[in-house]
Amino acid sequence: MSYLDRVSECNTFDLQRYLAFTIEGQRVGLVRREFAALLARYPQVFDVNHEQVLLAPQLGDFAARSAAVEPVLRELAAHGHILGWRDEPLAVTESFSAAPLMQIERAAANHFGARTFGVHMNGFVRREDGLHMWIPRRSRTKPTFPGRLDNMVAGGQPIGKGLLDNLIKECAEEANIPAAIARRAQPVGLISYCAEVPEGLQPDIEFCFDLELPEDFAPRNTDGEVEEFQLLPIAQVAELVRDTREFKPNCALVVIHFLMRHGLLPPEHPEYVELAQRLASPTLPLT
Amino acid sequence: MSYLDRVSECNTFDLQRYLAFTIEGQRVGLVRREFAALLARYPQVFDVNHEQVLLAPQLGDFAARSAAVEPVLRELAAHGHILGWRDEPLAVTESFSAAPLMQIERAAANHFGARTFGVHMNGFVRREDGLHMWIPRRSRTKPTFPGRLDNMVAGGQPIGKGLLDNLIKECAEEANIPAAIARRAQPVGLISYCAEVPEGLQPDIEFCFDLELPEDFAPRNTDGEVEEFQLLPIAQVAELVRDTREFKPNCALVVIHFLMRHGLLPPEHPEYVELAQRLASPTLPLT
Repeated sequence: MSYLDRVSECNTFDLQRYLAFTIEGQRVGLVRREFAALLARYPQVFDVNHEQVLLAPQLGDFAARSAAVEPVLRELAAHGHILGWRDEPLAVTESFSAAPLMQIERAAANHFGARTFGVHMNGFVRREDGLHMWIPRRSRTKPTFPGRLDNMVAGGQPIGKGLLDNLIKECAEEANIPAAIARRAQPVGLISYCAEVPEGLQPDIEFCFDLELPEDFAPRNTDGEVEEFQLLPIAQVAELVRDTREFKPNCALVVIHFLMRHGLLPPEHPEYVELAQRLASPTLPLT
Repeated sequence: MSYLDRVSECNTFDLQRYLAFTIEGQRVGLVRREFAALLARYPQVFDVNHEQVLLAPQLGDFAARSAAVEPVLRELAAHGHILGWRDEPLAVTESFSAAPLMQIERAAANHFGARTFGVHMNGFVRREDGLHMWIPRRSRTKPTFPGRLDNMVAGGQPIGKGLLDNLIKECAEEANIPAAIARRAQPVGLISYCAEVPEGLQPDIEFCFDLELPEDFAPRNTDGEVEEFQLLPIAQVAELVRDTREFKPNCALVVIHFLMRHGLLPPEHPEYVELAQRLASPTLPLT
């Protein structure tokens, strides 16, 4: 196996299965044909044709769109077509910096192939015997990727919150990192990918942060989402990423990004150029 | 002006003007139609049709191809179609890690739209009053981009040399940085772009390095290619990149890459996602 295998595993899908999802001429997602057929039952909200799913144009602003879509999603959820309702709004947007066009329940995001955004932080320690990274194992009771390895701290980006503020909150909940330390986390770039998931597509961007921790700091999980933290030599982390599927797939990419920025995966590596280019690929593929 | 303007300036070209250049089924460049017409005069070496330029398939290996192409290039240079002959071989390759398919004189590289590779290093100092970057101004007598601002050290990648070895050599020549210090330069990723130049296309990848320098080190140019070095506050460097065309175009991208990795161009910046994705775009566009 190779580092590029990890990138490919986050970018495997068949575009033929999807229709573009468009609001006011902006491409905001991709909908699987089967789910589009369900949406077609609500012609006052969704205009479904053979090429795309359009939000009804008379829904003229954020509030009107969000209000019209919500009861449709609740009805689909009641019939078992959307699972795991969280009551957590997600912005539907053409890009991270664009004004959101509407909001939908997060559990429905992948059904629409809506862009998602999050923060991932690599926590590391420079010890005399080399660089080490804090690696958590996800709780066996988590609904997604139970028992897999993760980045030290990570979380989805809620609507209307700053990236660093969100990271500081997650640092406290996931690893008991005090705000005074978490605040030193350095933004270092992003990874982007488009993953096929059971519900549809997840075009995702994760903003990456590095946090160097003092040797005497030991993380402790406070929200029950982590089974254990291990401080591993970076060479061992690199091997786990390259040679196993122990890591949650997108977390493996965040580690690869770290290795490349810290000279631990050197530019002479035969995969270096392709890794650099594919880790930052545009997330929503064009049909 | 904006950071994205700098990226666009390195990626402006009209694909309609070019034909694919192919060796043994591998896409190794793009040739402008006018230059392809010149190559068509040498049918024993180049097979030119309306879609592409093919190297004659009977030229079966690196040595045969290089030997057959060289006299053609010398004749074209003698007639003024290739300027600035340097007697410096450049690998023609499908990717940085692939075995080169032939070598050509560097002065002809852009006529073939051959991929080029180089090393660029940002030299910086952490002072009490903040991060500063060493910025050279190119000599007014340089044939390319005279008098423009540059990265502290940069150079093209010659065939068969290691990236760090090349960087250490350039560090000595361009800034009088001792090898013991230069060796600490950290590989931190790459930028890639495809620029239109008078001769044709330059699909280029620059491997980026960071070098933190001690406060008491002052660079001195030893090869006459630098007019002066200035140690500038990073905010001023960022402004020069964003609001002026003072920087040599590709060097501006290397600075943007630095700013993003050091939290100086934060992820909340409206251009951040597009910058991250476009700085690493695949270099050779598909027709």
